[in-house]
Amino acid sequence: MKAIILAGGKGSRLWPLSRDMYPKQLLSLDDNQSLLQKTFRRLLKFMNVGDIVTITNIRHYQDIKLQLNQINFDNIVISELIGKNTAPAIACGIQFFKQQCDDDIVLIMPSDHLINNVVEFEKSLNSAMELANQGYIVTFGIKPQYPETGYGYIKTKEALYPGFKVEKFVEKPDSETALQYVQSGDYYWNGGIFMGKISAFLEEFYKYTPEIFLQLPLLNFSERNAIPYEIYENMPSISIDYAVMEKSDKIALVELLSDWNDLGSWKSLYQVRKKDNDNNVLKGNVIVNNVKNSLIFSQKELVAVSDLEDIVLVETEDAIMACKMSESQNVKVLYEKLIGRESDITKFHKTIYRPWGYYTCLNSGKGYLTKNICVLPGQKLSLQSHKYRSEHWVVLEGKAFVILDGREFIIEAGGSIDIPINSIHSLQNPYDEELKVLEVQRGSYLSEDDIVRYSDCYGRV
Amino acid sequence: MKAIILAGGKGSRLWPLSRDMYPKQLLSLDDNQSLLQKTFRRLLKFMNVGDIVTITNIRHYQDIKLQLNQINFDNIVISELIGKNTAPAIACGIQFFKQQCDDDIVLIMPSDHLINNVVEFEKSLNSAMELANQGYIVTFGIKPQYPETGYGYIKTKEALYPGFKVEKFVEKPDSETALQYVQSGDYYWNGGIFMGKISAFLEEFYKYTPEIFLQLPLLNFSERNAIPYEIYENMPSISIDYAVMEKSDKIALVELLSDWNDLGSWKSLYQVRKKDNDNNVLKGNVIVNNVKNSLIFSQKELVAVSDLEDIVLVETEDAIMACKMSESQNVKVLYEKLIGRESDITKFHKTIYRPWGYYTCLNSGKGYLTKNICVLPGQKLSLQSHKYRSEHWVVLEGKAFVILDGREFIIEAGGSIDIPINSIHSLQNPYDEELKVLEVQRGSYLSEDDIVRYSDCYGRV
Repeated sequence: MKAIILAGGKGSRLWPLSRDMYPKQLLSLDDNQSLLQKTFRRLLKFMNVGDIVTITNIRHYQDIKLQLNQINFDNIVISELIGKNTAPAIACGIQFFKQQCDDDIVLIMPSDHLINNVVEFEKSLNSAMELANQGYIVTFGIKPQYPETGYGYIKTKEALYPGFKVEKFVEKPDSETALQYVQSGDYYWNGGIFMGKISAFLEEFYKYTPEIFLQLPLLNFSERNAIPYEIYENMPSISIDYAVMEKSDKIALVELLSDWNDLGSWKSLYQVRKKDNDNNVLKGNVIVNNVKNSLIFSQKELVAVSDLEDIVLVETEDAIMACKMSESQNVKVLYEKLIGRESDITKFHKTIYRPWGYYTCLNSGKGYLTKNICVLPGQKLSLQSHKYRSEHWVVLEGKAFVILDGREFIIEAGGSIDIPINSIHSLQNPYDEELKVLEVQRGSYLSEDDIVRYSDCYGRV
Repeated sequence: MKAIILAGGKGSRLWPLSRDMYPKQLLSLDDNQSLLQKTFRRLLKFMNVGDIVTITNIRHYQDIKLQLNQINFDNIVISELIGKNTAPAIACGIQFFKQQCDDDIVLIMPSDHLINNVVEFEKSLNSAMELANQGYIVTFGIKPQYPETGYGYIKTKEALYPGFKVEKFVEKPDSETALQYVQSGDYYWNGGIFMGKISAFLEEFYKYTPEIFLQLPLLNFSERNAIPYEIYENMPSISIDYAVMEKSDKIALVELLSDWNDLGSWKSLYQVRKKDNDNNVLKGNVIVNNVKNSLIFSQKELVAVSDLEDIVLVETEDAIMACKMSESQNVKVLYEKLIGRESDITKFHKTIYRPWGYYTCLNSGKGYLTKNICVLPGQKLSLQSHKYRSEHWVVLEGKAFVILDGREFIIEAGGSIDIPINSIHSLQNPYDEELKVLEVQRGSYLSEDDIVRYSDCYGRV
């Protein structure tokens, strides 16, 4: 069995913890592992590491590689240069496996859903495999627990052991309709998890979305596994539901027997977390007095709350969000209001993670920017130069190995060095301890894109 | 007429905007002036600058001097080395004036109440003066607008033109009693504003608190006008109400005809601020969606709020506080929970103001601390040395004039200098532009008290 992990999601629904450049799948929401890492590890119970491919937007390529490296897998990640919804991504993933083997069963999973009960999950996988082997494209349906209006539903018809035939896919219902769906017993939530043979998927793409299918033979996965822009440009932006599932007559459904949560809102995150005696989920530097049924997250500063109920309050380094628990999906309204403001608060975190470590912007002013940089043991930044800025480094902790215009310097904690405009330099930490450096950038243009790279952070020229 | 401004208040009720070391009277809550500055200016309409004395705790001495300097008054500030409630402070203030003139009328005012209508205020002052000249100690009563349970009340009896005789002072009532007080028409809120002749006050101190009165002749206001510890130590910690007002038979009341608000809670601050169409008071980098009847303050980072009503949310550089508007007095419960925690979050702000400018702690780690320092044009830091830390300064904006072990350096933006342990140094800005310096402290002990001063920031040795 092969698997495609869809990891192209955006960061609006759990803002400000998630950002465009650091969306939900990259976050560690219930323990130390990100949702992507958990999804990847879950699949490893059923297949080999080489049978999994992750598809994401180019913007997240580096972070996803980094997270897979963290759990010791240098796995294949295919990057999309532009977002085109799920159908093109899935088709390209299928084509990737088609080039590897003639035919096999492929499981397609979102990277940002929570499933903890692997024993029950495996039972559903086995049922789906039976039907996939018969040529069906199988969707995993979640038995609705309550009349949710935020999900699409799937209506089943007669049994197709060990699942059902599918009558139709239906859009997000209003609350009255949702209640009817739940009561009828024939409806399932559409969790966006699918399984089918490569041949079955390709046949249905051929039948129902030839504009996608006809591009596939042009794909030749090469350096960095980026899907060429010319190919993607010609594909429609369309969901797999719309492109195939709602049209095909080869669709079956098996019930997802495990737990499942899409963590699609702060409320759903609250639901899966362990509560304290006041039914609160508190994380970080939080202090409360007479607070109930609330989710309060602090990433950095103290958050003190008194006499409130049913609220969500999330503190990050550069944004604080508070909302009513039952209306937590409205964070997207705030998010949309913020898009296009001068700041990039919907896009970036203040602390940015890189393969070599991370940096945090401390403050900025007229012609300067200060950053706190951490270089992990054994890591280095690329050999680079800047056209518009000088830099001044002060070593705070650890020891820095610096290359500056061909000369080498070792700088101990407390020492400092000037990096002039246009000088070719690299900050490196070949030692065992973390290196912390305070960087003061000065210049007429202070942005990450003022960089000429002479090698990458792996030392490759 | 003379005036004593009582400015010794603590910072618990408007935390996290107020702190122990930067309490309410120092804050600018409704415009660009602090409550202390507004109180001072209000009094200048009725007396000369030399007739006003401010009494505060030694902790706030420097900040109060600074704020008075900001509005161009180098006025007398008497500092208490320990807090002893209002009676000892008032007695010492009275004694201060007694040493200046034989007898005069003294007005005593808290530094942190809001009074905007000066015309009506003056009417009440004139009424009080009539009675003070007859030997009465006059308290200013505020006609209750609603049955507040958080204030003490004063019950009046027969008229004593242009005020009333006082029957009794009563403690904070329960809500039922408060309602009876309001309905009776005989009760007033006790706003803590008093007036009387020096001789009248001294007589009543002599009669009712001789343990305070007998210390007064020992007072000799000298350098910095600090009240000697030996004298204060022997005085009881007692309020003026308890020490004199509730016992004396020379008490009169005049109604305070102006507006009045003690800004004693976030709710009362909300009440005096201008509301927008949704009845919100929003300040700083705040964005809202479907929010009503709320007070939201941002000092630094973005605060985004959705679907909440009747809340207070205050963001400062190092603490976020959220509470229900109607229970905003409970911020003191949070405050008390925080006292004694390892951090000084109830005591200090992250940005500390000094006569020469201000500094902000950016971050700290193993053996280092980084600060952003701003030195105002024409200002300088004292000539000083440190036993346990070296410093490294990077000039970010402006130009620094540095004295280091007798040598002088001029450092332009982008330049840096090392300040070794034990070296005698001073950071100065004799130029017209603000000087911004990034300071990296390194050492085994990093605290403000590791300092030997060779001159102060005014250049005085």
